[in-house]
Amino acid sequence: MLIKKELLSQPQYEDCTHEIEVPFIEYQTLAVDTKNLRLFSRLQASIEWKDPELAWDTSVYPYDNVILPVNKVWTPELHVTNGIRTTMKHSSRDLLVFSDGRLMHDVIINAEVNCEINLFNYPFAADACPIALHTWSNYGCGTMLSLDVVYLVNKTNGDWQTTEVNLLTQGLDHHYIMVKLSIKYLNPFITLLLPSILIVLADVVSFALPLGGGERNSFKVTLVLSFTMFLIILNNELPGDGECSPIIRTHFCVCLVLLVLSMLVSLVLTRLAKDGSIIFSCCTKGPVPKKEEENEDEEAKADISVVQLSASEEHGRMLRKVVDFLEDFDAKLLKSEQYEQFASRLDKIFFWLYFIGGTIYFSAMTYVMVNYECEINHFTFWY
Amino acid sequence: MLIKKELLSQPQYEDCTHEIEVPFIEYQTLAVDTKNLRLFSRLQASIEWKDPELAWDTSVYPYDNVILPVNKVWTPELHVTNGIRTTMKHSSRDLLVFSDGRLMHDVIINAEVNCEINLFNYPFAADACPIALHTWSNYGCGTMLSLDVVYLVNKTNGDWQTTEVNLLTQGLDHHYIMVKLSIKYLNPFITLLLPSILIVLADVVSFALPLGGGERNSFKVTLVLSFTMFLIILNNELPGDGECSPIIRTHFCVCLVLLVLSMLVSLVLTRLAKDGSIIFSCCTKGPVPKKEEENEDEEAKADISVVQLSASEEHGRMLRKVVDFLEDFDAKLLKSEQYEQFASRLDKIFFWLYFIGGTIYFSAMTYVMVNYECEINHFTFWY
Amino acid sequence: MLIKKELLSQPQYEDCTHEIEVPFIEYQTLAVDTKNLRLFSRLQASIEWKDPELAWDTSVYPYDNVILPVNKVWTPELHVTNGIRTTMKHSSRDLLVFSDGRLMHDVIINAEVNCEINLFNYPFAADACPIALHTWSNYGCGTMLSLDVVYLVNKTNGDWQTTEVNLLTQGLDHHYIMVKLSIKYLNPFITLLLPSILIVLADVVSFALPLGGGERNSFKVTLVLSFTMFLIILNNELPGDGECSPIIRTHFCVCLVLLVLSMLVSLVLTRLAKDGSIIFSCCTKGPVPKKEEENEDEEAKADISVVQLSASEEHGRMLRKVVDFLEDFDAKLLKSEQYEQFASRLDKIFFWLYFIGGTIYFSAMTYVMVNYECEINHFTFWY
Amino acid sequence: MLIKKELLSQPQYEDCTHEIEVPFIEYQTLAVDTKNLRLFSRLQASIEWKDPELAWDTSVYPYDNVILPVNKVWTPELHVTNGIRTTMKHSSRDLLVFSDGRLMHDVIINAEVNCEINLFNYPFAADACPIALHTWSNYGCGTMLSLDVVYLVNKTNGDWQTTEVNLLTQGLDHHYIMVKLSIKYLNPFITLLLPSILIVLADVVSFALPLGGGERNSFKVTLVLSFTMFLIILNNELPGDGECSPIIRTHFCVCLVLLVLSMLVSLVLTRLAKDGSIIFSCCTKGPVPKKEEENEDEEAKADISVVQLSASEEHGRMLRKVVDFLEDFDAKLLKSEQYEQFASRLDKIFFWLYFIGGTIYFSAMTYVMVNYECEINHFTFWY
Amino acid sequence: MLIKKELLSQPQYEDCTHEIEVPFIEYQTLAVDTKNLRLFSRLQASIEWKDPELAWDTSVYPYDNVILPVNKVWTPELHVTNGIRTTMKHSSRDLLVFSDGRLMHDVIINAEVNCEINLFNYPFAADACPIALHTWSNYGCGTMLSLDVVYLVNKTNGDWQTTEVNLLTQGLDHHYIMVKLSIKYLNPFITLLLPSILIVLADVVSFALPLGGGERNSFKVTLVLSFTMFLIILNNELPGDGECSPIIRTHFCVCLVLLVLSMLVSLVLTRLAKDGSIIFSCCTKGPVPKKEEENEDEEAKADISVVQLSASEEHGRMLRKVVDFLEDFDAKLLKSEQYEQFASRLDKIFFWLYFIGGTIYFSAMTYVMVNYECEINHFTFWY
Repeated sequence: MLIKKELLSQPQYEDCTHEIEVPFIEYQTLAVDTKNLRLFSRLQASIEWKDPELAWDTSVYPYDNVILPVNKVWTPELHVTNGIRTTMKHSSRDLLVFSDGRLMHDVIINAEVNCEINLFNYPFAADACPIALHTWSNYGCGTMLSLDVVYLVNKTNGDWQTTEVNLLTQGLDHHYIMVKLSIKYLNPFITLLLPSILIVLADVVSFALPLGGGERNSFKVTLVLSFTMFLIILNNELPGDGECSPIIRTHFCVCLVLLVLSMLVSLVLTRLAKDGSIIFSCCTKGPVPKKEEENEDEEAKADISVVQLSASEEHGRMLRKVVDFLEDFDAKLLKSEQYEQFASRLDKIFFWLYFIGGTIYFSAMTYVMVNYECEINHFTFWY
Repeated sequence: MLIKKELLSQPQYEDCTHEIEVPFIEYQTLAVDTKNLRLFSRLQASIEWKDPELAWDTSVYPYDNVILPVNKVWTPELHVTNGIRTTMKHSSRDLLVFSDGRLMHDVIINAEVNCEINLFNYPFAADACPIALHTWSNYGCGTMLSLDVVYLVNKTNGDWQTTEVNLLTQGLDHHYIMVKLSIKYLNPFITLLLPSILIVLADVVSFALPLGGGERNSFKVTLVLSFTMFLIILNNELPGDGECSPIIRTHFCVCLVLLVLSMLVSLVLTRLAKDGSIIFSCCTKGPVPKKEEENEDEEAKADISVVQLSASEEHGRMLRKVVDFLEDFDAKLLKSEQYEQFASRLDKIFFWLYFIGGTIYFSAMTYVMVNYECEINHFTFWY
Repeated sequence: MLIKKELLSQPQYEDCTHEIEVPFIEYQTLAVDTKNLRLFSRLQASIEWKDPELAWDTSVYPYDNVILPVNKVWTPELHVTNGIRTTMKHSSRDLLVFSDGRLMHDVIINAEVNCEINLFNYPFAADACPIALHTWSNYGCGTMLSLDVVYLVNKTNGDWQTTEVNLLTQGLDHHYIMVKLSIKYLNPFITLLLPSILIVLADVVSFALPLGGGERNSFKVTLVLSFTMFLIILNNELPGDGECSPIIRTHFCVCLVLLVLSMLVSLVLTRLAKDGSIIFSCCTKGPVPKKEEENEDEEAKADISVVQLSASEEHGRMLRKVVDFLEDFDAKLLKSEQYEQFASRLDKIFFWLYFIGGTIYFSAMTYVMVNYECEINHFTFWY
Repeated sequence: MLIKKELLSQPQYEDCTHEIEVPFIEYQTLAVDTKNLRLFSRLQASIEWKDPELAWDTSVYPYDNVILPVNKVWTPELHVTNGIRTTMKHSSRDLLVFSDGRLMHDVIINAEVNCEINLFNYPFAADACPIALHTWSNYGCGTMLSLDVVYLVNKTNGDWQTTEVNLLTQGLDHHYIMVKLSIKYLNPFITLLLPSILIVLADVVSFALPLGGGERNSFKVTLVLSFTMFLIILNNELPGDGECSPIIRTHFCVCLVLLVLSMLVSLVLTRLAKDGSIIFSCCTKGPVPKKEEENEDEEAKADISVVQLSASEEHGRMLRKVVDFLEDFDAKLLKSEQYEQFASRLDKIFFWLYFIGGTIYFSAMTYVMVNYECEINHFTFWY
Repeated sequence: MLIKKELLSQPQYEDCTHEIEVPFIEYQTLAVDTKNLRLFSRLQASIEWKDPELAWDTSVYPYDNVILPVNKVWTPELHVTNGIRTTMKHSSRDLLVFSDGRLMHDVIINAEVNCEINLFNYPFAADACPIALHTWSNYGCGTMLSLDVVYLVNKTNGDWQTTEVNLLTQGLDHHYIMVKLSIKYLNPFITLLLPSILIVLADVVSFALPLGGGERNSFKVTLVLSFTMFLIILNNELPGDGECSPIIRTHFCVCLVLLVLSMLVSLVLTRLAKDGSIIFSCCTKGPVPKKEEENEDEEAKADISVVQLSASEEHGRMLRKVVDFLEDFDAKLLKSEQYEQFASRLDKIFFWLYFIGGTIYFSAMTYVMVNYECEINHFTFWY
């Protein structure tokens, strides 16, 4: 018996092709890397094949089956066609040989597969990735694979959920396991969509703040800069760019531009509410000193007149002064009020434009995000 | 003796089944990965088995036991059934053989086990994970495992504490080590719960700030945006989504919505306190210029009359102007005060609603977080 | 000579125990992981042992020593008892054999040791970790270790400093290297303690800001939220929870609560300074409209009387109106001043309470942090 | 047959040079590390060579081809000349031998190549990296390589896109694969350029805010500090410094200085608008108390005079007082208005300077970023 | 020939010492870890040695050189003396043997070397690290190394630049490669120094903001907290603590204290400008209510008198009231102006102190950072 094993420690070749049966595969998704669009999976396959030279006559050696160390016999190799890094390990150091030369063994394959997952509708993404299996074969020589059943264990893992695995065949000998994946959208919804929606909502409602008080501008700048920081932090979490780049990236970009636009309009309207114009010209120098001089003149005159006039007239004049002061104050108020009215009206118009535009945009974006389907050919590795 | 060893460098098969005794296992939790729900553990097992062909006659070779290099004899393998990545290493390169063929050896198993830890009540989570052990066996051939004692070393490690390990058996030959884990809640309490509680508390107390001054809005926007940032940063630390997803994620989501709601109400009430209405209509253009014209007319008339009147009348008129101005000012104040009273009343109503609602929500959430138990079947790998 | 080597390529067993001499160990700390309480170290040990079968007669073979490839002779193994992951590598592929059978060899051991470092007084932490060494030995068979000298190279490394290494023995054959570690406190002091002290100091001094102006509240909310962010970021850097969890974690927690308390008091006092009460009741609706009506009545009467009265009376009445207005203004000012005085007094009382309480707390905390010693038994692995 | 294989398990040497044919290479870019300027790629090469000693007479052994285990025959090695870490693995454990001694085999090469990618025009960067292949050869002995076809699979991966691969030859035997890479600019544009452009734009528009109100300064300081944070966070994402360091780093640096400059000017102008001068001299102490004393004197006199004067004179005097107060107020307003006018004019001049300078700078920078080409010699490894 | 190789598959020993020639080393710096002060480098060395037993008679076997598989002959090992983790790999599986027994081979050494890089003047740091090479040798037996030329490839890599490599010898047989490294200061300058300089500059200029308006305090608190965040984030990027700890750490610490000091002074001066004193005493309760009572009394009297007096007197009295009100207002203004003047003067004094102190400090720090040289003995591994 021992001698027999020694003899068999070489691979077998019969008429250049050899069938390998894989009655059972246990599939498990280890991780999904949305950055580099990779799928890490673990396959535990039980394989069966025949090796006539390992058969024995049960009349001579009265055992139905014997256990052999795995490194003393030839074992077939399973390859993952679209795998980047694949390791096949024996699940045990022993294997079972039946008297008719049939061998049974279990192997564990850890495969890192390149899969262009469709992430267009990102937080609601779902796709199917093929894991193609083959055995070594060249110029008609080699081994032939025949797969039977795939069983899925451990459905939920991290952010991705493996919903289904199917064993499919393309052409004659292109076997693959179709792994259906869907993202658990709660987590990215909370971290990605909810804050962005709330920030834009707060920006819309911030039009309720009075224009002139300075409050609105600081409110809006806080929103914009928060959104920027939010964008930077989250960009690290956003999936990478494939053929079907997630539309949410463009969406965030548009949101940021909208927020900045709304802030800039608010800034300009603040100026308008104060000065009545938004043109920064250096030519406004001229009239300003003149007016000042006039005022000074008036003052000077007033001072002189105060000294000269009689008491009663002085009395009246003085009262008039008070009235003048109040009237001046009133006139200024009126003017600034006029400006404010104008700015406020523009503000309202802009608000409605912004509100309607934003609503239309959001509806369209939601529609596209939910309904549009981006098609990817996952079988580019079979050229 | 040397020759004898050479001969024995092959595995043994007697009547196709072989008992492996594991008198002692030293268990140690290396790490708990709450993101991918994995348990990393290290088992140091001493194993004992019999190999009749390694026995010798002490009368011929007068030693009770000899030391053999481990790679010259067959050694059994221990497998972790639910392990994703398992490595078994010999703890030493030599093993002890007794004259009756009994062998003693120590092995070290590093196992990464998939364990759906119940994280529903996250910062107070505690669960038990099974680590199932088996040896290779197929069609009745192979080895049989018999475990004796498990000893736990190094209880505390990182955020998780291993409270207890037990050796249990399910069915006939399903042996597993039940590892009881509980989280050290101080750390997540400080980083997760405490800040969220304090931010919501600050939001409630911020109703004490005056409505109109602009202070409250900026206070609330700071709170909201801080909470958003806080949420984003912490989402990386939050455990992943399993079957029993932590309720704290939903809780944070609700908190954020509450904060934003409270801020938006505050924004709208600010508008209400100023204008007396919250409807942004473009139709308010009409009356505004009319009023202005009236004012201008009045002014014009007043200016003319001032010139025409006699001194005494002028005196009275001027005084009247001052009074008018003050009355106008008073009336405006009164009107805005009315608006403010109204807004303030609404504010108080909202505060009480918010306060009562928040209190009820928090009580309910605390009750659920502490009392609800989410059941997980940890034995899905034995199908 | 060549034949002789071939023969010796097996381990040696003489009367079941064998002495291994380790004349020299070069110790180096590679890293200290304060999160998982692990110590990574590198030991370069020169070992010496005797193998009688490798001795030769110098008269026959006239060399004092020969060089043998290391994989052709048996070499002893050094194990780290409390090591989680230990790798022993030969420092060279050749070793020296003397004619009396003495062998000299160098090995490099990379050990990851579980060490419950005492981190109670964290930024000033210092502790000693044992690295226990043993060789394989079972039922009296095996090898015996005898250590001589340990030499420490490369004292400073990262945040931790290895101050001393000593070779100690517990019981008969429990040899261990005691590694004394101390943290370089400058780095954690700057990132952990200094900002926290400065933030609390700024909070205390912020009582200098006027209560009513809104400045103080925004100042304090900025402080609180910065502290929260600071806490979250730094929690990642804080060492993990062992038996002697760092007191600084609790300290930060208390600081945060103090800051929030001070902010909330400030918020409430702002309300008090404005309204004179902090009770938000919906019942304040009643009197408010009444007062308004009164005012309106008064106004109405005044308007009527203005029309009816003669010029002189009208004159006086109008003056009175101005005076009334000013008196009203004055009264309001007085009342709000009264409220402010009251709030300011409460503010001062709270400040002193806060100041004294804070000082006492800080002194106590500093005393505990510097003086309290938390005892850990590092030898739990020898049970 | 079996015996024959045993015999051939040694490498072959015929007249010291040996041709290796590589009819087909499948190229795949795994990752591009822009920090350390490395290119990770995977080459799956099918190789063919002749081994006369493995040929057989088909009349004796009637098979055209046999399968041999790969570790029993000599296989050639492919090396990546400019690779830092290269691993060559056999894609299968078996290979095919034809009766004329021709062998066919597949190997997988994972190569980490040092490639000084031209990142000067960073977000729009595109470059070509050579991957030089050679086989072992020394002093005319060894193997000769002859490459045929390179096929590119999986073009898009992460942020970089492999647009083309070509097989080129330099000199006689310097074969290399030229890999053309181009960055997908959408991602860095959104995270790097867009926020920086928006922040600078907001800074320009923030000149619309009134100078004196304090709003503008806080707006600008928020912008500056956000930009600082943004710079720090993004510096981690910016590619490393090679010969052609990305110009965007300098650009950000200039932007930051511009923002700070604009903020400092705004701060100084605020002072100017208030005090009329920006010189902080301690000498302004002198006149201030004097004026106060005068005022007090005046008051004192006024108080005395009020008592002594008759009713009518008192009446006039009192009225005058009111007028004086108002005039004083007016004069102060006027003066501060003058200051403000001056500061406002300077502000406008600075705005135009800033605006024009900024526009010119941005145009120049865009021109340089898009058009300038930085030349790198990628073939420094062939010296 | 084949038989001959089999025979030679063992190492050689002639008179116990053996010279290894290394005619050429290609040096490449892979990375510099400034956190743990490690240098990762890659050495590609071509080695030559003689093995008399591999020589053959060219008359018998008419070839000048043959190719041998590398694992069939003995090859020397190169060790890095101060390496922590060193791996030596054969660059090819074949080597060349000349007929006189000379062997030529290439090896690749990846070495992780402990190098206490002088980081005192951090962003301008430059230092030289030795990489000591030796071969195995013990008690005069072993191999002797003779190095010839070192060639540097790929100078720039990441943040560090390798400027020069030299082959030096200390004593008789201590060979080492001196690697001169210098940091590329642009990157740390932009992320570390520039923001800190700009923040401190902004703090100095923020003294231009008016003291009382609340603007300055919020400006300064933003600066301080930004600096804190900046410090925390950057501390992760700062190099670790060696013997020559970077002075920039202390510098940042001093900057932070300066900023906080300036903020605290600003807070206190704000109080001073408002109340005229900075002592928070609870005893200020006494006078305050008294004054109020007085006021109330006065009011009461005034009310009574208003009723009793005749019209004219009433007229005068009422006017007086207005005047009193205005005078009161004026007096308050005056008083607060006095306080403000005093605070402003203190502010100016502090500004000049701060400015001069800061300038001196910065000059001194720059001088030290650029000029001071911290000496480190890099050869501690040769004890």
